[in-house]
Amino acid sequence: MADTRPGGRTARTRAAVHNAVRELFAEGRDQPSVREVSERSGVHEVTIYRRWGRIESLVLDVAVTQLNEEAPFPDSGDLRRDLLDWAHAVAGQVKTREGFALFRALAAATSPLGGDQSGALAADAARYLRQRTAQMRLALDRFAAASGKLVSVAHILDVVLAPIYLRAIFGYEPPDTELEALVDRALATA
Amino acid sequence: MADTRPGGRTARTRAAVHNAVRELFAEGRDQPSVREVSERSGVHEVTIYRRWGRIESLVLDVAVTQLNEEAPFPDSGDLRRDLLDWAHAVAGQVKTREGFALFRALAAATSPLGGDQSGALAADAARYLRQRTAQMRLALDRFAAASGKLVSVAHILDVVLAPIYLRAIFGYEPPDTELEALVDRALATA
Repeated sequence: MADTRPGGRTARTRAAVHNAVRELFAEGRDQPSVREVSERSGVHEVTIYRRWGRIESLVLDVAVTQLNEEAPFPDSGDLRRDLLDWAHAVAGQVKTREGFALFRALAAATSPLGGDQSGALAADAARYLRQRTAQMRLALDRFAAASGKLVSVAHILDVVLAPIYLRAIFGYEPPDTELEALVDRALATA
Repeated sequence: MADTRPGGRTARTRAAVHNAVRELFAEGRDQPSVREVSERSGVHEVTIYRRWGRIESLVLDVAVTQLNEEAPFPDSGDLRRDLLDWAHAVAGQVKTREGFALFRALAAATSPLGGDQSGALAADAARYLRQRTAQMRLALDRFAAASGKLVSVAHILDVVLAPIYLRAIFGYEPPDTELEALVDRALATA
């Protein structure tokens, strides 16, 4: 029977594999292979294939874990402050080579136009994104109840998140430029 | 001596190679190889390597050519109309599998955080992007002279272009959703 307790063997394997992927990205590797992850983590290739299937699924798991742990949508009850904290966390993440590589992996997995032919990865990625936007929707619903102002998740993604990512992609501005202006624009033009 | 007249052998080679890359992307290939491009175009692999170096440079050339030909920044003198036409062209392009693959290639080449270690590709890509934004800057300068309203290129990229691309990446809305609202927001919040 597999030892699945937190801190048990399965959890240790997962942590070792995740750390290996993050290290490889941080070192500038673009598309690490299962073999490289195995060598770096000391976890057998077969174990990695059994648990995650292909490398794209593993990278997606690492990307989503990083987002959820390091840039969760906050819940202080003050929407402006929560948006600002979240924007800072995302911008800080995407500025690092590792964070940017993970964003690219997420984007490759998520897009309905991506290269994934099977759709399995896209379905996983869509489920993860729904979990993330569900947190934001709760905060926006509460804001609407208190202020009478309806703000959609898509509006926040358009006005706050999109510039942060496009700046990182094209490098025309640092991703964390004037985040306060983005948040104020989102709340003003809702 | 190479025949470099428009319509000459060099131009025909370029067209055949470009078409092959676009066809492969349209068919869902994610990262075509020089060998595949050679087989599809009938142009010798050595010719492709000599002219473009590696596949990433070729793909960047194709991406930039597509952008310049199919979504140039218009110049009617009416900024709102020009922004709207341009937004429609970009959104239409990124909605296709081929256009999205080319955007990904451009993004991979451009980003200072991308996987390109040499920086040569990033320098090419940055030069291409400067050429593109120069057209936009001219239109924005004319608008400023006429209206007294300063709008920066970065503001247009943040407010109009970023949502179009993020929608295509994450699929939370079709890329061409309410483009008029994006353009109006850009001009209102400048």
